[in-house]
Amino acid sequence: MPIALRAAERNAIARLSEGLNLPKFMRGSVWLAGGGPGDPGLITALGLSALASADAVLYDALLNPLLLELVRPGAELIFAGKRRGQPSCKQSEISATLIRLARAGKRVLRLKGGDPFVFGRGAEEALALARAGISFRIVPGVTAGIGGLAYAGIPLTMRDTNHSVTFITGHDADGRLADFDWDALARATPLLVAYMALAHADKIASRLLAAGRAPQTPAAIISAATTGQQLRTLTTLAELGAAARDAKPPALLVIGENVSLANELDWLSTGLEEQSPPQRRRSVL
Amino acid sequence: MPIALRAAERNAIARLSEGLNLPKFMRGSVWLAGGGPGDPGLITALGLSALASADAVLYDALLNPLLLELVRPGAELIFAGKRRGQPSCKQSEISATLIRLARAGKRVLRLKGGDPFVFGRGAEEALALARAGISFRIVPGVTAGIGGLAYAGIPLTMRDTNHSVTFITGHDADGRLADFDWDALARATPLLVAYMALAHADKIASRLLAAGRAPQTPAAIISAATTGQQLRTLTTLAELGAAARDAKPPALLVIGENVSLANELDWLSTGLEEQSPPQRRRSVL
Repeated sequence: MPIALRAAERNAIARLSEGLNLPKFMRGSVWLAGGGPGDPGLITALGLSALASADAVLYDALLNPLLLELVRPGAELIFAGKRRGQPSCKQSEISATLIRLARAGKRVLRLKGGDPFVFGRGAEEALALARAGISFRIVPGVTAGIGGLAYAGIPLTMRDTNHSVTFITGHDADGRLADFDWDALARATPLLVAYMALAHADKIASRLLAAGRAPQTPAAIISAATTGQQLRTLTTLAELGAAARDAKPPALLVIGENVSLANELDWLSTGLEEQSPPQRRRSVL
Repeated sequence: MPIALRAAERNAIARLSEGLNLPKFMRGSVWLAGGGPGDPGLITALGLSALASADAVLYDALLNPLLLELVRPGAELIFAGKRRGQPSCKQSEISATLIRLARAGKRVLRLKGGDPFVFGRGAEEALALARAGISFRIVPGVTAGIGGLAYAGIPLTMRDTNHSVTFITGHDADGRLADFDWDALARATPLLVAYMALAHADKIASRLLAAGRAPQTPAAIISAATTGQQLRTLTTLAELGAAARDAKPPALLVIGENVSLANELDWLSTGLEEQSPPQRRRSVL
């Protein structure tokens, strides 16, 4: 990791933080920050500021490694994520580490993928800090359910089709699909976005179909949202389960009419972007 | 507007954009970007990059003026938002302006508050660009429904209480409350976040109560989310309509058990932040 090469970026971040009048990262405090869904360009100015000034960074598996190059030389980098086949760090251990480092007077950055309060267990960590009397700040980030849809050309809302949207997570703390009211979910909002739901895509689709959603409802699977490896699969609710068997995690499921605009709004593949390789596209329609 | 003073910030942004390998803003293209919910620290690196290199910026009313200071000298700044008592620019005029400026070879930034695809009519603008053959990029932003809750100390999700969340908008294109399936909305997800819903707070609360949500369900109103003027009112679903009559727009309504954590997680008022003035708090409990 060419940390020494990033001094210019750290200086630039310091200059920007001053110009935007950002709060200072105080010793002995913890910032729970979202790193965005994958594209390093989607981290916030506050997130960059925290990276460049933290003494310790606890980070998750889905973070773009480029972001970690921005830390100061000598800052402690601690991996706190889940790796395939390995048990993840226990939540209680992560919270205890945050508290210990803060009590040692460090500026502690807890950097999560997406947003820290959206299916990220950030609330549990914040509560642990509050109860330990540790000063903390929440730094929101772009969540995958919003950023990923934008990069797939799927509007989260459309004035003519939906005035509401629902996010669900595809697995609870034990990896199971939570006990949703499927009848209500099917009718409540025209668009449904499911995080980390690949394993249960079949079940989710079946429940929504049983609750009356039309089999031909457009649906999409977005793998590795907003990264250079983003793969978008366009399908229907009836075929979603089958399509999910060929898809790779981490993935979002998107169900609703707005998905039908995905080809027309596919700026990522059709645009004049120089650096971004076109996303891989797959259609099982 | 001290534009000349911001050359250092623009240089810093250029340095960062190179370091993060961000895509170049091409002449003749449009970036539809989110500026975040209010705090200038919540804009993304891509958003900053677009601001510092755009030739023309069409911006909305709720954007932090500090962000607009980052544009290049000579860049065209066009206000496209709604002001109290004034009709807003017609959507078709905004799209036509974007197309005209792009065809003139300019780098055109369409900067919206929050995220461009979340109740922001960004999808309509993107479709107009696509149909006109204009190259465009969507730059997601932190939406108020996520950022505002974080700054109010309200977790959008909690592992123990909710595996889902629903966002609705409080008014449709004509300012009316959309025709929701209230019975389904009341049951679908434990947490409901309503954007721009102050005028219809009474109706929203009545419909949810009629559909069976408990009167004592914790509720909050967050005005001017994430700005220095943020005001958080904690109440209950039964009292939400009355509380809304004293609140100022723009405001979010939040309904669900997670609101009960707002005092314990009120980092904005209790933290050791130096620059941020503590948010004003009001409780009608």
